[in-house]
Amino acid sequence: MGSFKSDQNVSFAAPRAFGKRLKSDLKETFFPDDPFRRFGDGGGAVQRVKKVLKYFIPILEWLPKYNLSMFKYDLLAGITITSLAIPQGISYAKLATLPPIIGLYSSFVPPLVYAVFGSSKHLAVGTVAACSLLISQIIGRVASPEEEPTLYLHLVFTATLVTGVFQATLGFLRLGILVDFLSHSTILGFMGGTAVIISLQQLKGMLGLTHFTSKTDVFSVLHAVFTRTNEWKWQSAVVGIVFLLFLQFTRFLRNRNPKLFWVSAMAPMVTVVVGCLFAYFINGSQHGILTVGHLSKGINPVSIHFLNFDSKYISVVVQTGLITALVALAEGIAIGRSFAIMKNEQIDGNKEMVAFGLMNILGSFTSCYLTTGPFSKTAVNFNAGCRTAMSNIVMAIFMALTLLFLAPLFSYTPLVTLSAIIMSAMFGLIKYEEMYHLLKVDKFDFCICMAAFLGVALLSMDVGIMLSVGLALLRALLYMARPATCKLGKITNSSLYRDVEQYPNATRIPGIIVLQLGSPVYYANANYIRERIFRWVRDEQTISDTNDGSVEHVLLELSGVTSIDMTGIETLVEIHRSLHANGIQMGIINPRIVVMEKMIASDFTETIGKENIYLSVDDGVERCRDLVPKLKQTGGSDETSISFAMEQLHRNLNLQ
Amino acid sequence: MGSFKSDQNVSFAAPRAFGKRLKSDLKETFFPDDPFRRFGDGGGAVQRVKKVLKYFIPILEWLPKYNLSMFKYDLLAGITITSLAIPQGISYAKLATLPPIIGLYSSFVPPLVYAVFGSSKHLAVGTVAACSLLISQIIGRVASPEEEPTLYLHLVFTATLVTGVFQATLGFLRLGILVDFLSHSTILGFMGGTAVIISLQQLKGMLGLTHFTSKTDVFSVLHAVFTRTNEWKWQSAVVGIVFLLFLQFTRFLRNRNPKLFWVSAMAPMVTVVVGCLFAYFINGSQHGILTVGHLSKGINPVSIHFLNFDSKYISVVVQTGLITALVALAEGIAIGRSFAIMKNEQIDGNKEMVAFGLMNILGSFTSCYLTTGPFSKTAVNFNAGCRTAMSNIVMAIFMALTLLFLAPLFSYTPLVTLSAIIMSAMFGLIKYEEMYHLLKVDKFDFCICMAAFLGVALLSMDVGIMLSVGLALLRALLYMARPATCKLGKITNSSLYRDVEQYPNATRIPGIIVLQLGSPVYYANANYIRERIFRWVRDEQTISDTNDGSVEHVLLELSGVTSIDMTGIETLVEIHRSLHANGIQMGIINPRIVVMEKMIASDFTETIGKENIYLSVDDGVERCRDLVPKLKQTGGSDETSISFAMEQLHRNLNLQ
Repeated sequence: MGSFKSDQNVSFAAPRAFGKRLKSDLKETFFPDDPFRRFGDGGGAVQRVKKVLKYFIPILEWLPKYNLSMFKYDLLAGITITSLAIPQGISYAKLATLPPIIGLYSSFVPPLVYAVFGSSKHLAVGTVAACSLLISQIIGRVASPEEEPTLYLHLVFTATLVTGVFQATLGFLRLGILVDFLSHSTILGFMGGTAVIISLQQLKGMLGLTHFTSKTDVFSVLHAVFTRTNEWKWQSAVVGIVFLLFLQFTRFLRNRNPKLFWVSAMAPMVTVVVGCLFAYFINGSQHGILTVGHLSKGINPVSIHFLNFDSKYISVVVQTGLITALVALAEGIAIGRSFAIMKNEQIDGNKEMVAFGLMNILGSFTSCYLTTGPFSKTAVNFNAGCRTAMSNIVMAIFMALTLLFLAPLFSYTPLVTLSAIIMSAMFGLIKYEEMYHLLKVDKFDFCICMAAFLGVALLSMDVGIMLSVGLALLRALLYMARPATCKLGKITNSSLYRDVEQYPNATRIPGIIVLQLGSPVYYANANYIRERIFRWVRDEQTISDTNDGSVEHVLLELSGVTSIDMTGIETLVEIHRSLHANGIQMGIINPRIVVMEKMIASDFTETIGKENIYLSVDDGVERCRDLVPKLKQTGGSDETSISFAMEQLHRNLNLQ
Repeated sequence: MGSFKSDQNVSFAAPRAFGKRLKSDLKETFFPDDPFRRFGDGGGAVQRVKKVLKYFIPILEWLPKYNLSMFKYDLLAGITITSLAIPQGISYAKLATLPPIIGLYSSFVPPLVYAVFGSSKHLAVGTVAACSLLISQIIGRVASPEEEPTLYLHLVFTATLVTGVFQATLGFLRLGILVDFLSHSTILGFMGGTAVIISLQQLKGMLGLTHFTSKTDVFSVLHAVFTRTNEWKWQSAVVGIVFLLFLQFTRFLRNRNPKLFWVSAMAPMVTVVVGCLFAYFINGSQHGILTVGHLSKGINPVSIHFLNFDSKYISVVVQTGLITALVALAEGIAIGRSFAIMKNEQIDGNKEMVAFGLMNILGSFTSCYLTTGPFSKTAVNFNAGCRTAMSNIVMAIFMALTLLFLAPLFSYTPLVTLSAIIMSAMFGLIKYEEMYHLLKVDKFDFCICMAAFLGVALLSMDVGIMLSVGLALLRALLYMARPATCKLGKITNSSLYRDVEQYPNATRIPGIIVLQLGSPVYYANANYIRERIFRWVRDEQTISDTNDGSVEHVLLELSGVTSIDMTGIETLVEIHRSLHANGIQMGIINPRIVVMEKMIASDFTETIGKENIYLSVDDGVERCRDLVPKLKQTGGSDETSISFAMEQLHRNLNLQ
């Protein structure tokens, strides 16, 4: 039997020094992607500075290699996204109850900043619907956009600055980890819920209502719509439905044939132009068609002196900034990453955060509000064949030209057109199939998704997000507090031990019970683990009692235990003491390096005895089997015991 | 090669039905100790009802078997704990700024209730210092105990009712899990910090001060003591120090010889009696020795009509009730369990909660305040040789006799005596060695402990507890978000694969990289896991590049992954896609039952191909090795490749 050499194989190396361990832990926590690896390998000081600069300012990396053939693609992509940026900018600014021109400003400065600092090649910068509504909802609580438009505007700029500073700080501190706590299910539900309430809000524009509620929940909005039936304007509704059908048709075309992406990309611009002409020629405002109104010429004015840090508003401004920052990051980073994966490229989440942060900081100084990487624009950019972030620069230039020369023309844009554009965009965000898939695969994930969806739709956006994140955390904590354990049995004709529930043919070993723990062992689950182990032992004893054997050894398989804290170690000591009092020997199998370090530091290895720590289940079982009295090995009469006795017999026969 | 039969062995059984899985999950979460197992096995309806009653009312279990020889032990233990209960009751009531008689009342009704419903044989019921101070601190914020003593008293009764209802509800709902989130480190720090501030507060009694601060933090207390040097009474200080030295001496005796436990158990009673006599004969109040004052005869008056649910106070009352309920449960359950383990018995945390809850509910109706199982009293009870909860009944009877006939005698108790008793008890709660042990074994646990210790000592008790719990949760979430992964290498002459960092002799297999994941794979760590896996692959490629080989296969060992959510599955899909794009094949090794179920439900098994899921690392490696072109297997020139080539050579030689 190879059992007696096994304890030599278990590594009892002295724990690593605290400093070394801390460094390794910090690196894993904050630098899992090891961004500095490239700075290490050789080169003089100048070379290194160049490398560092290139790392932090990606444009230095790609611009020198840039050539005309790449520019052709980027130019086309840039023009395409500009045509989307104009109607979207105006629409989303209306959603944030800001002057429409702010939406256009936001597509000039931020894309330029992103082009310099951003690491994604496909991301197109712009404003997003969800954050626009969030801003209007939270800031609207302290400053009414209708009654105090200037104050409201200044608070929005300030919130944008907070967003930028927060995003950049997260990136610098490598705290991308925070975004990880917004799960895919939360975002799915949040997007769906937001799409529902935004669509409903568009009924205001579609029906040409002038008075409306500032609340966003479904009940308030429906109430506002249906108590004002006398204000409904049929002309507006007809125009709106025609535009909506047109937009949905182009989306349908694109879905049928992805090569026709440009049709749906250009459609909003076409709608706006047609809408402007229509409103201009029929003199729309006299026929119930409200228009955007005055849009002045000129590029972004400086707004740094408008930033408002009045203590009366600061808490709301900071709250808005933080919530929208996380939502914008989650959307922007997830989208950047999705497209990078398609092209098999890497993007660095923390670097992206810094880029987003800088673009919002500079944006807040130049009359822009919150921007990120919206899904629709990025998808169009990608499909239009963009090669580098140059497409953002192209868009910024065209946007500047628009602002300088064409802006007043857009003042004829009918509000109903904007509503149709927003509604059409929103319909695509409610992903029934994905939700159904969740329901099928993971009920709890579906609940998390629904918490966000219904929370946003029925209560308010921030409450919905927090409910969902809270539920997701609760689940995570519950899982942590109740880690799965299982009993292992031997797979016939192998040295493998597997879960007896999963592999019903795995046989138990008389007198020995092998339990596999998973997950870290912590204060939060230590009690549970102790109770559970005792239950496994009791259950096994009940089986054993009926066939005249009893449990003599409990082996704990710890390969899956990635860490352990003091309470965990103490629990193991308690289990050992309690089993010992019942005449049962405890063994430990294959503790990982961090667990072994703590076991050594706390003298647990001495308590249990080094000879009871094994490298593999097979080692442990072999050793314990030697110690179990012969009587018990062959005794017993149930099926497994019989099969075991048969095995013994076969062995003996083979030997003779 | 045995590799081609392996995939037959992997269990692709259809996922268990949702109902079955849910039932199993709920059982693991709320009934890990399987309390109903005893009701199942046979017997008529009457038998079953009896079993259920015995389960819920433990006294029905032990009273019928009770006999005189057991009673002898319980009588002795009961008398001993009564002698401790009187001084402790008065002292802790003063700590809660309640009339001292309330402390005596609290040792009459609650012990009777516990004797009926409690499952521990050794627990002695009584009031505790930490909760007493917490009550005075939190309720003192809305009602001053000096200026509105009646209101304050009624609010305390109400908070006790809230505590009881909350505890009983937690128990009924099997939510003992909540208590698990108060880690050992938190409790250690909390107890230590509380001991420090309570000891400092006793300077008021020791120095005979009449004016004092109602705050508890170290600064306020020291400030209050040292700005009132003119009020210091040396007579009081001398008496106090003498008593304190006496008490400490008896503790020292007990520590030297555990059989002398009764000396230290009786010492507080002796101090009180001596103090009373002393104060009575020298007419203490004229010599700077303040006494407890009026104590009326008679057992607990009914207080149910005093319960105050005024909306002005209710939020503070509920807050007090919830916080003290958790702290009291944590202490009571931990202590009951510690002693049960010594005697190798089981106690049921959830049943204990119900018992604690009922005793506090009934207590709040009969002029008692919060009681639990204090450590000191329980230890004395255990050492005095108690056999059953009968010792609590004995204590209650003696306490009733005291209340009926002796109470007025205790009105001469000098306050300085009580201060000495409290101080002496507190010194034992600051566990330097345990804190040092924490520092040595687990720095982060030490920080959690210090957060509670310093938070309680320098800020306030509830803030201290919350800081510490928050920090512990943060650590847990961080660990969850950054689960350890490691690269496995083959241990020579075995089929085992182990962490190459832990076992530096484990050799890598050219072209194949085996990574072991641990912990559940979740939305919160999915991004990290993806990044980390890509980093392992990049690192491996860098090594391979220098010796002319490249990574062809990535095997993920999932035995340690106890659960996975949708984001986790999607991340695996992403990893697969990304590796595939780089010409690398991904394999999965030994997914557990819940993981396998989700993989099947989400069609991941089809995406990756069933043939790429293996039962063991060895299987997977063997299979992949067959697929790696021969050239690469023998190529390379570094040490591991050489050893591999040597191994190949040896094999060939053996074959010939």
